Amino acid sequence: MNGLFITFEGGEGAGKTTVLRAIKDKLEKEGCTVTSTREPGGSVIAEKIRQIILDVAHTEMDERTEALLYAAARRQHLVETVLPELEKGNLVLCDRFIDSSLVYQGVARGIGVEEVLNMNLFATAGLMPSLTLYFDLDPKVGLSRISDNDGRENNRLDQEKLDFHYRVREAYQSLVKKDPERIQTINAEESLDQVIEEAWVKIRSFLNMDAEKR
Amino acid sequence: MNGLFITFEGGEGAGKTTVLRAIKDKLEKEGCTVTSTREPGGSVIAEKIRQIILDVAHTEMDERTEALLYAAARRQHLVETVLPELEKGNLVLCDRFIDSSLVYQGVARGIGVEEVLNMNLFATAGLMPSLTLYFDLDPKVGLSRISDNDGRENNRLDQEKLDFHYRVREAYQSLVKKDPERIQTINAEESLDQVIEEAWVKIRSFLNMDAEKR
Repeated sequence: MNGLFITFEGGEGAGKTTVLRAIKDKLEKEGCTVTSTREPGGSVIAEKIRQIILDVAHTEMDERTEALLYAAARRQHLVETVLPELEKGNLVLCDRFIDSSLVYQGVARGIGVEEVLNMNLFATAGLMPSLTLYFDLDPKVGLSRISDNDGRENNRLDQEKLDFHYRVREAYQSLVKKDPERIQTINAEESLDQVIEEAWVKIRSFLNMDAEKR
Repeated sequence: MNGLFITFEGGEGAGKTTVLRAIKDKLEKEGCTVTSTREPGGSVIAEKIRQIILDVAHTEMDERTEALLYAAARRQHLVETVLPELEKGNLVLCDRFIDSSLVYQGVARGIGVEEVLNMNLFATAGLMPSLTLYFDLDPKVGLSRISDNDGRENNRLDQEKLDFHYRVREAYQSLVKKDPERIQTINAEESLDQVIEEAWVKIRSFLNMDAEKR
């Protein structure tokens, strides 16, 4: 397994999906073979698992069942899409991965980060991303960006939802503290060009360090 | 949570399902409220999860995905069927539970018992059966019982299948060694009446000990 696995994480409106696309272009211009993906990533089995999770009729679904189903879909996407590229030595950029589960199921659903991490390490068979870019910004800014895009008014964000997004941010920031080598923070409140530039600098420096090690 | 959770485990043809029914009758005659169940146990979500596992079109399913899906179905069955009965103080008899995953996914699929156990403890939130009856017998005997029932000839058992069932037996026996307090072995090579009697003696003595502790 010689490829590099880079994940993009952050709350709503942080711009990570747009930045991921821009970074992919830049890497390809440098001659890298890059796969960009997100779960369930076209896996038939993973897609069926997500249909069970997202079925609104399933009001009786327990939060641990949900976490296990996300992990099952993750495993299948990993095996079908990510691992074959890494084994060829290619770069894989993935929009959200294990840290999203730690934050959304571990913290927001209240199961606990350690428990959700250990269960997810079963799913990945111990594999963690080589590098994770965390796009950090004030949830008010992120959510107002989304509202602007939707043509909705900013003042429709109610306080309860805002509290949830502040808990998500806090959870991401505490993951960064625990694993500062792997997870690098990008200030996502800057302009899109600046955010892309900061992400690019971090990825280039990581690739250079990685090349020196090999 | 004051009820008792008793699971029945063993290879094919060990008679555990028949014994479970007989034990339920005996307990009810003594005035106990007993629920007998098996996964997915009528849970709509657990049933949908099993459909994904058992779909023969899913040849690309990874063994860890499969183990996670079984655990997700287990969680949902536990929450919907088992825990409410235990909370009412009732007895729950369950045909196969966590030990089946340890044996079939941990050993037979080669993932490893410890890994499958830890992942399943996420699913049960740490809950283990109060008592487990393991119905032990030579796989040759068990499989010939099934063949007799089917009207098939015994000699159709090929060696490869037999080896698999011997590995399953060995795996169960090694679980008993690790946790002899919880898992009690029943000699399932005896006549059905004797097997029921042995199971009944073990359950009665467990219930008496439990009553003394309370």
